[in-house]
Order: sequence, then C-alpha cells, then structure tokens
Amino acid sequence: MEPVKVALLGCGVVGTEVARLLTTQADELAARVGAPLELTGIAVRRLGRDRGLPVDPSLFTTDAEGLVARADVVVEVIGGIEPARSLMLRAIEHGASVVTANKALLAEDGPALYEAAAKHGVDLYYEASVAGAIPLLRPLRESLAGDRVTRVLGIVNGTTNYVLDQMDSTGMGFAEAVEQAQSLGYAEADPTADVEGFDAAAKAAILASLAFHTRVGLDEVHREGITGVSAADVRAAQAQGCVVKLLAIAERSTGPGGEDAVSVRVHPAMLPRGHQLAGVRGAFNAVFVEAEAAGELMFYGPGAGGQPTASAVLGDVVAVARHRVAGGRGPGESAYADLPVLPMDETVTRYHVRLDVADKPGVLAQVAGVFAAHGVSIEAVQQRQEQAGPGGGRAVLVVVTHSAPDAALAATVDELEDLEIVDSVAGVLRVEGVDAKGGVA
Amino acid sequence: MEPVKVALLGCGVVGTEVARLLTTQADELAARVGAPLELTGIAVRRLGRDRGLPVDPSLFTTDAEGLVARADVVVEVIGGIEPARSLMLRAIEHGASVVTANKALLAEDGPALYEAAAKHGVDLYYEASVAGAIPLLRPLRESLAGDRVTRVLGIVNGTTNYVLDQMDSTGMGFAEAVEQAQSLGYAEADPTADVEGFDAAAKAAILASLAFHTRVGLDEVHREGITGVSAADVRAAQAQGCVVKLLAIAERSTGPGGEDAVSVRVHPAMLPRGHQLAGVRGAFNAVFVEAEAAGELMFYGPGAGGQPTASAVLGDVVAVARHRVAGGRGPGESAYADLPVLPMDETVTRYHVRLDVADKPGVLAQVAGVFAAHGVSIEAVQQRQEQAGPGGGRAVLVVVTHSAPDAALAATVDELEDLEIVDSVAGVLRVEGVDAKGGVA
Repeated sequence: MEPVKVALLGCGVVGTEVARLLTTQADELAARVGAPLELTGIAVRRLGRDRGLPVDPSLFTTDAEGLVARADVVVEVIGGIEPARSLMLRAIEHGASVVTANKALLAEDGPALYEAAAKHGVDLYYEASVAGAIPLLRPLRESLAGDRVTRVLGIVNGTTNYVLDQMDSTGMGFAEAVEQAQSLGYAEADPTADVEGFDAAAKAAILASLAFHTRVGLDEVHREGITGVSAADVRAAQAQGCVVKLLAIAERSTGPGGEDAVSVRVHPAMLPRGHQLAGVRGAFNAVFVEAEAAGELMFYGPGAGGQPTASAVLGDVVAVARHRVAGGRGPGESAYADLPVLPMDETVTRYHVRLDVADKPGVLAQVAGVFAAHGVSIEAVQQRQEQAGPGGGRAVLVVVTHSAPDAALAATVDELEDLEIVDSVAGVLRVEGVDAKGGVA
Repeated sequence: MEPVKVALLGCGVVGTEVARLLTTQADELAARVGAPLELTGIAVRRLGRDRGLPVDPSLFTTDAEGLVARADVVVEVIGGIEPARSLMLRAIEHGASVVTANKALLAEDGPALYEAAAKHGVDLYYEASVAGAIPLLRPLRESLAGDRVTRVLGIVNGTTNYVLDQMDSTGMGFAEAVEQAQSLGYAEADPTADVEGFDAAAKAAILASLAFHTRVGLDEVHREGITGVSAADVRAAQAQGCVVKLLAIAERSTGPGGEDAVSVRVHPAMLPRGHQLAGVRGAFNAVFVEAEAAGELMFYGPGAGGQPTASAVLGDVVAVARHRVAGGRGPGESAYADLPVLPMDETVTRYHVRLDVADKPGVLAQVAGVFAAHGVSIEAVQQRQEQAGPGGGRAVLVVVTHSAPDAALAATVDELEDLEIVDSVAGVLRVEGVDAKGGVA
C-alpha cells in the first residue's frame, strides 16, 4: 500500500509524544490503518534543539507551508490562533485531512474550518481538544447520533479541579491552593486562562456545538471563573452535602417564547456529593452526558498531559488515514439543528445565597419578600445565630432557591444587598446536579 | 436523497424502542445520515399483537428472509443464536449492513460474521452488545486506535452488580439478594445466565477481541459466577477496605515463555473502595480502560434496558447508513495482533484467603510454608482469635498474596485444605485493582 504522508506541525509536549508514537508503534498503526503512516516532516520554529526523538534529524523543518503542501494528513499541535489557522486552511485547500488539539482556534473559528473541510471533502478531527485522552467527541458525534442529548455537564479543566479539590479536602483558601498547584506543575505561572474559565469556555463551546448540532461561538458562552470562590463558600457547600466544582454546562432548554434553545455556560457550582462528577479528584476530567434514550453516561480520564493528548491525536490520525485509504471521509460537523443560544439572563438555574443579617424578628419575612417579588421560589432556608449582642445579634441566613431565570436570581441578590437588615451577601453559588425534587440528578 | 431502507428483526423491548425512535425522530435522523431512514418492515414471530407503536400495521411481517433481501440496513434484535445468525449472514450476502445487540452470537461466532461482512464490503456494528448505551466499543476500536490498551476491567452485568451491591450495603446473603433483584425485575426468574457469569463472559470475549485485536472465543474466557460469594466474603472484603464486584477482565500479559499474550476472565474479586469501579452502584455498568498513552479511562452508564440499548442501536444505524450514503464502510474488525489467550492456570492474579485454624504457636509458620512451597509470596497476614478453649482455641487467618500464576495459588489453597491445623478454607477471592505496592490501580 502507498504510505499515508503525515506532517506534524509543532513539537512541544504533545507533538513530541505524537512523533514518538508514530515512530515506535509504526507496525501496529500500519495494521490498523491498512497502510503505513509516513512521518514526512516536523515543523518547528527553530531548528537545532535536541528533542530526544528517535527520528531522522532532517525531518525537522521551519518550512511549515511547504510541509503542509505535500501531506495527506496534517497534525496541528502548535496551539493558538495564528499561524495554526492559516496552516490548517492551507492544508485543507491542498486536500489534506487535519487533526488538531487546538481548542482555542476551534472555539473561535470552528465553523469556518468545518466548512472549508466539507467543501474540500477532507476530514477535520479534534478529539484531543476537549478532555485530553477521554474519548468524548466521537461518542457524542457518532454513538449518540441516534439519540437526543439533553445535557452535558463537565469538569473539563484539570487545574481548577485540582485547586477546588485542595480547597475542599484541606480547607485552604484559593490563593494558597493556586500556589500549590503552580509548585506541582498543575497550574501555569499565569493561571488566568484556567482560573478565569477561558479554557473551560472554549471546551464548552465545542461540546455544545457537537451535542446540539448548533454553532455555538465562544462569545455565546457565559463564563465565570473560580477566583471568587472562598474557603467559606467551600465550607458552606460542605454543610449542604455538596462540593464546589467548575462546571462546563450545555443544556437543551426552552427560550422565553417557548422555543427550543440551548444554554451554554461555565461557572463554579455546588454539586451534591452523591453526583457522579463530585468524586472526580485532582487534575482529572470527567464529562456527564444525559440523553433521552441512553440515560446518564459518564466519561472519565486524564484531561491533559502530553501522552494522553497524543493518544487522542493518534486515534484521530488513524481514523482520518483509514478514511483516506478507503477513499472517503468521516461524518463531518453539521449544525442543522441551529438552535438559538440563550443569554445567561434567560438561562434557568438555581442559587444558594448566604446572607449576613441582623438576628431579629421579621428578617426572614423581609428577605423572603424580595425573592417573591422577583418570582423566585425558595426551596430551603437555614438561619444560624452567629453572635448575640446589644442592638440585636448577627445571624447567617442561607437560602436555596428553586429554578428560576438567572436574571431574576441576580436581581434578587442585588436587591438583597440594599436591604438595611442585610449586612452583606456573603456568598452566591449556583447549584447543579439536583432535580426538581431535590434529589441528585 | 434515496432513502436508506432499514429492516428490523425482532420487536421485543429493544426492538419496540428502536421502531419508536426511527419513527418519532425521523427528521433528526435524516439530517444526521444525510438521507431519510425508511423502516421497511418489522419481522416478528406472530402477527396481531398490538405493540402500541406509531407505525403502519402492515409493516409487521413473519417473513424475515424476504425483509432482509430488500434492506440496506438490517437491525437484528431477536437475540439468541438461530435464526439470528442465518438472517444476519443472509443480509450480509445481500449486501446489507448489519447492526446487532446480540452478544451471545458475537461471542460464539463473531469471527465468521466479521469475515462475511469484510468479504461483502458491508458494516457489522454491535455497540449495544456490551454495556447497553455506554459508548464503549467505538472508543475502543477507533479513539484508542493509536494507543496500546493494556487492561480492560469492567462491571458489565447489572444483575450481579445489583445483587453484590445489596449484599454490601445491607449485609444480606446471596439468596436473599437474588430474590430481591427478581422481585424488582433486575433478575430473571432463572438467573443462571447472569449469576453464573455467562452474560459477562460473552461481553468479556467481545471486549478482549476489540481491545487486543485478537480473536477471543467464548471458550477461552475463564468464567466464575457469584453463587459462591457469601455474606462472610463481603464482610471480609469490607474489613480490607474493599468491595466485591463481578469483573470482566481482559489484560495484556506475558506467557510462560515470555511471549506477549492476553488473559480474559470473569470472576468475583475484591476491589479497593478507592477504585473508580468500586462506586458503581445498583444495576449500572462501567468499564475501566487502561492504555499506555491515554492512561486510565472510565465509561459509565446504564448497562441494559430497552431505551438505552435502543440508543446504542440507533447510533450504529446512523453510522452504517452514513457510510452507505457516502458509498463506503467503516473500519472493520481486525485480528491482526493475534495474541495467544492464556489459560487461567497461567494467568497472574492475587488471592485473598480466609482460613479457620487452630490458635496455637507454629500455625502461621506452617501456613506460610505452604505458600512458599508453591512460590507464592505473601503480602499481608492477619490473625484474629475467634474462641479460646481447652485443647487450644480457634482463630481466623487472613492471607493476602502478591501476584502469582493462578495455578500456583489454586494448588496452595488445595494443600492448605489438607493441613491438619486448618479446619477449613472459609473463603477465597481474587483481588483486583491493586498495584504491586498495594496502592489502588
């Protein structure tokens, strides 16, 4: 058989592993593809660095464009927007299939890339872009193709999960947990992309697009990071039998006019400890998928790292190479459902609100009145005296709401802050994974 | 577009759901396939029964062979060996792609069916045959195609998992737990196929074949059911921080001559409570996959039921229909690795042995001597006095071994039974999910 020519763009942590696996597992890969995979070159920014790879040094090149023009399959692991986008488009125009792990680019410009791939009859695969090695996109796109996905709930950022897990298990504060994550290599020196939820938001956009056959842009994803999560928030969650997780959520929903819609968001949330996702520890990722017929599924595994990510990239390389050997392409993206994406204001969620209040009669009635005024129904209230004193003591009031539009909940919290009997709104967290009856869902 | 003609063989719990989804979700399915799916007929054994389906009654037929001859895609949900096998072979010879949920037939005669499909250039898909709706076979076959799977450890039978879970959480015995499972519909009136491990063994054969690209016949799967698991075994596991699960295990291994090999088995085993699979409750299924680059992955979801199984069947129908619309077929099975399957005797496992012994000096030395004579190294020993008395009291001795060939472990237990100081071997369970250092793995 004619070999399938594979060009590798980028040779960082993931690229190095991809090159190593292509070389050391060549025989098995050839058996799986039905033809040998020939690594025709590795585009790097600068030559001369020894990467300890068992490959011919002449394979390294700084001429990425030239490499792309001669390839059947282009593997893009440079990351970032440019030159990755131009190179991928050039590859597609040359008739090469593309495998990428580039979540930022896909979230920003996925539709243009999918369209180009469809137009030129080539594959564009990106399993590694979400949740590292966990086979997730292919099941969503293919295994559940005969079902109707209703909800995707994921822990898709290992750094924030490690930080929140440490806060939960040791009681430490956010800053200390981030420092520890940095010292262990789980967080970058500048952790913004992770702790502010940018990374998770890009993944949420990709997951939502696939799950609901709808184009979801990064700017349509409501994003809140974990920088505002305090040790007190984590303790409050524990008191409710919950754990705080940064969740990427995409759900089938109903718009204000009763129309089908989707809601896509990333924010920290309380999750009951009995929920499948609550037990996901450390830097692991897991994605919970709910579909009408299939029920509740969960996918769990390492969310990052050179080797796991390379495994996902190689799986895609085998798939697109097989398609080429067979003379076809795999199922492409399709946004036929084209559901509107609800703004966060219209998204239905539930809140857990902690208030520092004056400990005197009538406080609960006044607070409850504010919720009622905004049409928000209360599920549970707890009041705990904090200190007695002259002029009335202080108490903590915890209110858990039923589901309501986020705008109504936010407006309620705003108004509570202005109440004279409320010293401060000590904490607000959304609650997920609870059904209408308060059970784990 | 020309419609894709789908023939449904069988209309039981799964078939009814498949027919319902094909009808009610016709528009979405057409969008995903790129052509409408036309349900051309439903083969049943007897006409006239009202199944409450929103389909034209004239679609029902007893002429399965005639139906198969006119179909593009044949969905087989009759179950059992015949007539399912003949009908599937006939469909393949007619050039139709086949989707099946029939684990018994695949475990018994998979290779002949895969070969026929390859010869006639059609797809044979069977995601629903293992772990219901959990997308598992496609990830194994495709997503991990660029990786090397080292181990598959699964809870693939919901009935036995429910029974063991009840024994663990309530302390009840095996017989009582089975009765309860029967009364709740989780176990059949004759639970043999489940509790004796036949169902799990068929799934283990399918999983091992896919994971290791090797033909594994049902007769090569070592099988032990859970009928011998006592309340005392469950308590002993709890005392070790473990839970008893019926596991389907397929692992890459080394034969006695140092050659690459696989081991495939189904048996109850102790699993540390910290292991991902230990938390799988009730009738759920979960499969843990370990691969060299990807690391540890887990897939979790409902393992049975009409709707979840129908979801998996429909996912396959969409895939094979898409291939037909595109004029191709998906990646077929391939047994190129062709590794030898180790007999259980040569499989390396570890044992947890409970002995009722005389409580006197020298007992431990004698017992330890038997293990040593068979080359079995001991990891831990616990001795607990049960009753003092004239002529020496009685004690319970618990021995946990390091890994050793199963034959050596079995011979050790045989010899222990003959020791005068051993009243009885009270329990023997294998231990899984523990690494060489005793950690959770």
